[in-house]
Amino acid sequence: MTSTALLTDQYELTMLSAALRAGTAQRSCVFEVFARRLPDGRRYGVVAGTGRLLDALERFRFGPEEIDSLRTVVDQDTLAWLSDYRFRGEIDGYREGELYFPGSPILTVRGGFAEAVVLETLILSILNHDSAIASAAARMVSAAAGRPIIEMGGRRTHERAAVASARAAYLAGVDATSNLEAARTYRVPSAGTAAHAFTLSFAHPDGSDERAAFAAQVEALGVGTTLLVDTYDITTGVKNAIEVAGTSLGAVRIDSGDLGVLARQVRRQLDELGATGTKIVVSGDLDEYAIASLRAEPVDIYGVGTSLVTGSGSPTAGMVYKLVEVDGVPVAKRSSHKESHGGRKRAVRAARASGTIVEEILLRADAPADQAIPGTGGLDVAELQIPLVRGGDRVSGLPTLEQSRGHLAHGLVTLPWEGLGLSHGDPAVPTRYLTEPESR
Amino acid sequence: MTSTALLTDQYELTMLSAALRAGTAQRSCVFEVFARRLPDGRRYGVVAGTGRLLDALERFRFGPEEIDSLRTVVDQDTLAWLSDYRFRGEIDGYREGELYFPGSPILTVRGGFAEAVVLETLILSILNHDSAIASAAARMVSAAAGRPIIEMGGRRTHERAAVASARAAYLAGVDATSNLEAARTYRVPSAGTAAHAFTLSFAHPDGSDERAAFAAQVEALGVGTTLLVDTYDITTGVKNAIEVAGTSLGAVRIDSGDLGVLARQVRRQLDELGATGTKIVVSGDLDEYAIASLRAEPVDIYGVGTSLVTGSGSPTAGMVYKLVEVDGVPVAKRSSHKESHGGRKRAVRAARASGTIVEEILLRADAPADQAIPGTGGLDVAELQIPLVRGGDRVSGLPTLEQSRGHLAHGLVTLPWEGLGLSHGDPAVPTRYLTEPESR
Repeated sequence: MTSTALLTDQYELTMLSAALRAGTAQRSCVFEVFARRLPDGRRYGVVAGTGRLLDALERFRFGPEEIDSLRTVVDQDTLAWLSDYRFRGEIDGYREGELYFPGSPILTVRGGFAEAVVLETLILSILNHDSAIASAAARMVSAAAGRPIIEMGGRRTHERAAVASARAAYLAGVDATSNLEAARTYRVPSAGTAAHAFTLSFAHPDGSDERAAFAAQVEALGVGTTLLVDTYDITTGVKNAIEVAGTSLGAVRIDSGDLGVLARQVRRQLDELGATGTKIVVSGDLDEYAIASLRAEPVDIYGVGTSLVTGSGSPTAGMVYKLVEVDGVPVAKRSSHKESHGGRKRAVRAARASGTIVEEILLRADAPADQAIPGTGGLDVAELQIPLVRGGDRVSGLPTLEQSRGHLAHGLVTLPWEGLGLSHGDPAVPTRYLTEPESR
Repeated sequence: MTSTALLTDQYELTMLSAALRAGTAQRSCVFEVFARRLPDGRRYGVVAGTGRLLDALERFRFGPEEIDSLRTVVDQDTLAWLSDYRFRGEIDGYREGELYFPGSPILTVRGGFAEAVVLETLILSILNHDSAIASAAARMVSAAAGRPIIEMGGRRTHERAAVASARAAYLAGVDATSNLEAARTYRVPSAGTAAHAFTLSFAHPDGSDERAAFAAQVEALGVGTTLLVDTYDITTGVKNAIEVAGTSLGAVRIDSGDLGVLARQVRRQLDELGATGTKIVVSGDLDEYAIASLRAEPVDIYGVGTSLVTGSGSPTAGMVYKLVEVDGVPVAKRSSHKESHGGRKRAVRAARASGTIVEEILLRADAPADQAIPGTGGLDVAELQIPLVRGGDRVSGLPTLEQSRGHLAHGLVTLPWEGLGLSHGDPAVPTRYLTEPESR
């Protein structure tokens, strides 16, 4: 069990050390995770990483090796406190796969100052990464309009981030991943085609031999396989593919060139050869805009790499972890440009009877649950946070990855129509604060 | 020992399976890692991740659990082959901390097709991530012009990518990291200040108490600590800081607002209070451009987060892993837009006597080492690749992280003056091919 305890910024432990000395370590605190804004003109964000976070929280323990490495960082009393550490507080949050907007309290952590402050980096790393990937992936899934997407970007990001990216992409509606660790750890369906290297490896001193490569692949993997036809000449590649595999060939992949033009040309050629059921997979620097631009072309499957695992221009969700309440008193930073709303919040989302959402409303957490919310007459109002951790333990029966995936698919349908547009703009719905901050 | 074997794309194993059946798995192959272009108008790239890659390569083993997870992916013969797998070939490459340019053969892997093809994803994930971070960090270090930078971006990237980012940033000349796991694993110096939450945690029903927070921090960490002065009002914060800590206070941190204006104002106030030795740390959405724009301001230390760990707009280095030679025959993909140069290459860099580099030259690997290179009369010519792995084992005596850091610091001085500019442009030196490709 690899400890996650050192995935932490040093200042959390030095603050802890100071709090222990000052006697404030046990003060009852509420921290909230939220994004001040959506990145780059996005209309919505997708919460992802909660499941991974709860796994990582269970492994957030300071064993002898971790303690040893901290001897020059904090004092003995702090080390003793860390040795005994396990989180014993409460966590509520948005479900994985929930939409979020600026200010949405995606996670609320309650506990003593010390036990809660040390989780800042772990919580933010996981939620910022996974939500960035899921938010980008959801746009790609929308752009693909029902055509499957295979995530194949592992090689373009950190080797472990690749695994988390595959999970977040699947959550967002991507159909499969090329990443075998994601298939093992999270049961994401895996898929794959072939690389140019495979075809090239059949070259010999007298020349290339694409047919031998195709024959070997079909022999090993069956005619349902996907042959990569653009190593040499695409037209010859398609001809070779069907001659070798027959008209039942599963698919051909095109990985370079003008994908729209080539898809049309290859579709025509496949149909003329009688391979009317052979699918066309396209890949090569696709993002949500490229996917959308191929909507009218005879493409069956998209392979997406770089743009997916790097959040399509927004590789981090920019969420922050802010102390909002101490011993029941709302608190907030006051200096310029980083205003925050003090006090623990409750979040609800108002929707029309049609299901279309209208606004996100943040209330004081101590407001009565049945209190009428001004301006929501005739609207359905749904609570957004669910209990995730109680007394330090994960709540049982939390949504599975598959359930969260379904939740997001449903959630996307509730967006106002302009919310699914790819163009830059304002958040799909506004966030309204009914919190009357009176922070210290 | 956590296996890295499943940090792999499925198609590598299915290609392996097909190669085993076709009898081509043992064909002698050369794969090269290179970037077709530098990202986004950059003038140079920095090779990073090689050390991490060699660690990960030692753990690239398919144990019983990995094999079990692959039973639906490949056949029995392939599983048996994987069970015995360890890389037994040769790897040469650019040193960590070496500059690179478009086409530079950053890594050359020689071995049987099967044993080399399965390493593609692991190699690219590590080099693409770490080189992207180091390349961005080096620009920030240049922009800081000698002032120290602390990397504090772990919360804005995947929790394990954060550790690798801290290492890559340190390699590139950043002085310290906030990440405790990077301090433990790679001995990167760690540093930290304090968060707004710490000051806020001293609030009580009658109001805030910044002085109590400062006093607690100084009590625990000494007067050399860095106090965060912008939770409420900066001028009051600075006043409180010096009243509580005295004029020997180590530093104050400003994390919001117009950092240039505030740095000047705070410097003046500190000097008037007699705290002439108290340093000013600034943070808050800094990137290389913001750092450069603060050059004339009285800033002592930069804290950099998001932009560093996300590669400042270029989160991946875009390197590819291409088969270039099979049984001594150069090979290359032929179809459009992704031309590559076949054949194993040697790389040298030509420099004037002053040390300023002039061009990167790629030669055929089988060209005699003492062969005169046209156009390099009067120039110093240095080989760029060093042996990294022989017979599957890491070569002993490879540069340490500290040595690689020194190598880069030296390398940056060899760039033509425009190469250190932050503006977008062409690579600092051209790449010249003397490889006469005759690929199949």
